[in-house]
Amino acid sequence: MVIAIVQLNYHIGNFEENTKKILDNLNKAKNRGADLVVFPEITVGGYLAKDLFRYKSFLDACDASINEIAIACEGIACIIGAPVRTQLTRAKALYNSALFLADGKVQEVVHKTLLPDYDVFDEYRYFEPNDVFKCIDYRGVKIALTICEDLWNENFPSLYKEDPMAKLFQDAPDVMINIAASPFSETHFNTRQAVMTSHIRKYKLPAFYVNTFGAHTDIIFDGRSLVYNKDAKIVDVLKGFEEDLRLYEVTDKEITSVEVTTSYEELSNIANIHQALVLGIRDFFQKSGFKKAILGLSGGIDSAVVAALACEALGSANVMGVLMPSVYSSEHSLKDALDLVKNTGCEHEIIAIKEATEALDSMLAPAFKGKESDITEENIQARVRSIILMAISNKHGYILLNTSNKSEAAVGYGTLYGDMAGALGVIGDVFKTKVYELARFINRNGVIIPENTITKAPSAELRPDQKDSDSLPEYDILDAILDLYIEQEWSAAEIISKGYEKELVFSVIKLVNGAEFKRFQSPPILRITRKAFGAGRSMPLVAKYPF
Amino acid sequence: MVIAIVQLNYHIGNFEENTKKILDNLNKAKNRGADLVVFPEITVGGYLAKDLFRYKSFLDACDASINEIAIACEGIACIIGAPVRTQLTRAKALYNSALFLADGKVQEVVHKTLLPDYDVFDEYRYFEPNDVFKCIDYRGVKIALTICEDLWNENFPSLYKEDPMAKLFQDAPDVMINIAASPFSETHFNTRQAVMTSHIRKYKLPAFYVNTFGAHTDIIFDGRSLVYNKDAKIVDVLKGFEEDLRLYEVTDKEITSVEVTTSYEELSNIANIHQALVLGIRDFFQKSGFKKAILGLSGGIDSAVVAALACEALGSANVMGVLMPSVYSSEHSLKDALDLVKNTGCEHEIIAIKEATEALDSMLAPAFKGKESDITEENIQARVRSIILMAISNKHGYILLNTSNKSEAAVGYGTLYGDMAGALGVIGDVFKTKVYELARFINRNGVIIPENTITKAPSAELRPDQKDSDSLPEYDILDAILDLYIEQEWSAAEIISKGYEKELVFSVIKLVNGAEFKRFQSPPILRITRKAFGAGRSMPLVAKYPF
Repeated sequence: MVIAIVQLNYHIGNFEENTKKILDNLNKAKNRGADLVVFPEITVGGYLAKDLFRYKSFLDACDASINEIAIACEGIACIIGAPVRTQLTRAKALYNSALFLADGKVQEVVHKTLLPDYDVFDEYRYFEPNDVFKCIDYRGVKIALTICEDLWNENFPSLYKEDPMAKLFQDAPDVMINIAASPFSETHFNTRQAVMTSHIRKYKLPAFYVNTFGAHTDIIFDGRSLVYNKDAKIVDVLKGFEEDLRLYEVTDKEITSVEVTTSYEELSNIANIHQALVLGIRDFFQKSGFKKAILGLSGGIDSAVVAALACEALGSANVMGVLMPSVYSSEHSLKDALDLVKNTGCEHEIIAIKEATEALDSMLAPAFKGKESDITEENIQARVRSIILMAISNKHGYILLNTSNKSEAAVGYGTLYGDMAGALGVIGDVFKTKVYELARFINRNGVIIPENTITKAPSAELRPDQKDSDSLPEYDILDAILDLYIEQEWSAAEIISKGYEKELVFSVIKLVNGAEFKRFQSPPILRITRKAFGAGRSMPLVAKYPF
Repeated sequence: MVIAIVQLNYHIGNFEENTKKILDNLNKAKNRGADLVVFPEITVGGYLAKDLFRYKSFLDACDASINEIAIACEGIACIIGAPVRTQLTRAKALYNSALFLADGKVQEVVHKTLLPDYDVFDEYRYFEPNDVFKCIDYRGVKIALTICEDLWNENFPSLYKEDPMAKLFQDAPDVMINIAASPFSETHFNTRQAVMTSHIRKYKLPAFYVNTFGAHTDIIFDGRSLVYNKDAKIVDVLKGFEEDLRLYEVTDKEITSVEVTTSYEELSNIANIHQALVLGIRDFFQKSGFKKAILGLSGGIDSAVVAALACEALGSANVMGVLMPSVYSSEHSLKDALDLVKNTGCEHEIIAIKEATEALDSMLAPAFKGKESDITEENIQARVRSIILMAISNKHGYILLNTSNKSEAAVGYGTLYGDMAGALGVIGDVFKTKVYELARFINRNGVIIPENTITKAPSAELRPDQKDSDSLPEYDILDAILDLYIEQEWSAAEIISKGYEKELVFSVIKLVNGAEFKRFQSPPILRITRKAFGAGRSMPLVAKYPF
C-alpha cells in the first residue's frame, strides 16, 4: 500500500480555499500512485477554530467540506481530521475526529481520546472524549489511527488514565498513523520523537506522525512530520515550516520505499526560532488580509530584530520604520536606526515627538502643579509615539508590530498603550538574551542589525543617560530567574535554593506579578517556548501574590 | 443537628486574611450553637486562582490553611472547599474538593465529579474528575455532599454522562449539601432554583445550596445561597452581594428551625445588575489595593453611568472625572458633564485637548500629505484623551475606568488605546439599551445622571454633528441582533429567519467579527450576562469568518 502524507497551511474558517487545497493535494497524491492520503488534525475547519465551533453554520460548512472531499475519494482513500457532531443526548456537541473516506463516502470515524487541557490547549471546552477502540481495515492493512495527544499518555507530565494505543494494539494493527496539530516550541521536536519511538519500541510497528503547519495568530505549527520504521529508526522527516507531500510504500509492517528522500537537516535552535517568527508574521498578515507593517525604530536591538524579521516575512518594501526621536534620544540612536533602514531596505519616516510632548506637558501643568517629573513623563513619550504609529497605520493601512521582548513583558518594563501597543507581539516570547542571539543569527551572512545596536548598553532613552540596568538586574541573571519562575513554574523558595540571591528573586517575582494587569491587555504574542504569555499562562489579576 | 451556612468574600491567594475570616465565622457559628458550618467551593485558595494552582508554594499555603481550620474544629465540624492534591500517578495534579473537618483533623474528602469547561470555566485545566461516591456520616446524619456543577447534569444544555446525586442517593442520605462558586448573571438565580428543585423533587430531601460571594476581576459572585425543605419549598435565601451566616436545625430529613428569618425580597433585574457592578468595582479596587478611580466625562450616558457607579462603590471623593472638550464638543456636553459632577459630588478637572491634537496634526502633516481627514483624526482625539487620563492616573495613583458599553465593544465602535483604555471595563457587558435602564435606575431617588444626558441622541463628538446613528443601526435593533449572535450564538441565517433584514444582519455580524482584534486588547469586563466578552467567548483572530 502506498501512503501519502500531507502538510498544508489552512486558514481557519476559509472553507473554500481550504477545501480546494485539500482536493489539490488529494489529486496530486492519487496521480502519484497513492492508495491512501493522510492530512493532519482538524484540517477541515482549522485547529483551533475555538468558539466558532459553537455556531451551527460553521459546523454545517465543515460537513459540506467533508462531503466534497469524500466524493473526490474514488480510487484513493483519505484520512483527514475534522470536528464531528456527537449526536448523543449526554455528551458535548463535538468530537475531535479523524475521518476515513473511501469510495465516495465516509467509511469510518475515529475520535480523539486524550484531550489536552493545559497550556494553550482547552479541548474539553469543545470535545467529548472517545471510548471506542477499533482499527481501520483498508485493503488488507490494519491501521491503528490516533489523534495527536492520544499517544502522549506516557510522555506528558500531566498523566492520563487511558492508553488508546494499547487498546488499538489488541486489534492487531499493521501500521500506526497519528494525525496531529502539534505547535512549535524550542523543545517540542525532540519530545515528539521520544513520544513516537516509545510507542514504536513497544508495538514494533511502522508509524506515520502527520503534523500540521502554519501560524494562527499566536500559535505556530512547524510541520516536520515524522515517518518511522518498526525498528524505531526515522525513515523521513518532512519539511519544517513549509507545505509538503510525500509518499511511502508499506508492505508487511515495513516501509519498503520512499518516493522523495530529501535528507532532513536539523537546524540550530535559533534558526528554528527565526523560521517560526518569520512564518508567524507572514501568516498573520496573509490570513488577515493585510500587506504592510509599521513599527517604531529606536535604534535599539528589539525594534531592529523585529524590523529585520518583518522585512524577511513581508518584503522590505512593505515595512515602514518610524524614527521618533525625543530630547533624550542619543545621536547614535538615530544613526543606528538609519543604518538598519539602509541595511534592510525598508521604508522610513522621521517624526520628532517634542511638539506633542511639550503640548501635553503644558496642558497637564495645572493638574501636575507641585509634582516632580517622574515615570509619568516617560510614559507620555511612549504614548505619543504610539499615537503617531497608530495614526500612520490608520491613515495608510499599516498593521503595527509590537517589539516588546519577553524579559520586559515579564517585569512590566514597558508602557501600556505606549510601546506595549501593536497588533502582534513578534518577540514577546523571546527573552532579551535570546534577542541578541537572534540578531547575530540574522547577521549570519552579512550585517543587517548594525553592530552598534548589538554592542551598546540597552536603554529606553526616556530620561537623560537612562540604562535598563538602572532598574533591572543584568539580563542574563534576570532571564535565568524568569525562566525558572515562568517556564518551569518554580516557587520563590525553589529558585533561591538554586543559588539566586533572595532579595533579587523576591523583587523579580514581585515585578512579574505586578505586571499581570498590563500583560492582560497585550497583543497576541508569537509562541516559541513551552510557556508563552497569553492563552498558555492564565493568572488572576486581583489576587494577592506571595510578593 | 444545627447547620450553619456562610457566604464570605475571600481574596484569591490572601491566605492570612482568608483564613482569619474563615476562623471568625467558624467560631461565630460555634458560639451560636452550630454542629456543622459549611463554606462554599474553594474558599481556601480562592475560586479561581487559575495558574497559581500550578505553584507548589500556593498549594502548600492551601494545605497550611486547611490544617489551621481543622485544628479549630473542636466541638464543631466544618465543610469547606479547597484544592486537594491527587497523589495519583495517572491523574491531573488536583481535585476540586470539599473537606469534612472535625475533631481537629480532616475526616473525609469529597471531590467534584462534573467539571465545567464552557463559558468562563476551564476546570479540566486544573482538576481531575471524581469517580468515588459516598455520603458523609456525621452524628447520625448522612450528608450527600456535592460541589457546584455536580448537580447540573440534568439542567445544563451541555450534558454530562455522570449523575453524582443519583450515586449518592444509593447511600441513603438525610440531607443534600452543595457547595458552590456560581457567578452572577441576569438569569442565573432562576436557573439555580430550577436545578435545586429538580433534585429535591426527585430525592425528597432538604437541601442547602451554599454559594460564594465577591468579585474577582471580571467574575462576580452574588451569594444568595438557597435553603430548601424536602417538599422543594424555599426555607430561606441568603443575602445578595453580601456576607451572611445563618443557622438551621435539621431533624429527621426536615428543616425544623431557622435562626434568622429575613424574608428575601427579589429585586428587579436592573437592581441586581446595579448591585453586581458596584460590587465589581469595589472589590477590584479593594483587592488590588487602590482607592481612587479616574475616568473621562464626555457628557454622554456611558461615562455618566460609570461615574455614578464608581461614586457609589468608592465614595465620590475617590472619583475623578476629567472633562476633555475638543473643537467638536457641543456646549451641552460640557454642561451635562458638569451637572453630573455636581450631582455625584466627584472631583473633576477640565483639560481641553486642542493643543495636543494640533501639535500631532502638524507633526503628522508631512506623512499625511494629500490625504483627506478621516477616522485617523478621530482616533487621535480619543488617544490624546487616553494619554491625559493615564498621565493623571500615573502621577496621582488613580486607576482608569473604561466606559465602553457592550454594543460598541461588539461592533468595534471605539478607539484602541483611546476610549477602549482602562484597567476595568465597568459596563462592557451592558448593552446600550440597558445602559439607559441603568441610568433611570440610578436616578430612582433623584436626579444623578442629568436628564439631558439620558434624552439627547448619542454621539462620539469626534467630528461636526456626528451621531452614533450615522454609523450604526438604532440601538434597540442593534442590541437585539447582537444578543442573538453573541449571547444565543445563532448563525446569520437563523437571525434572518427571525425577521431581521438580511443586509443589516450581515453588516452587524461583519462588524462584530472585524472587531475581535480590538477586543483582544480590552481590559477585563465585569460579567453580568451569560456571555460576556473576555474569557467566556474565545474567538480566533486571523480566521476567515462568514462575513
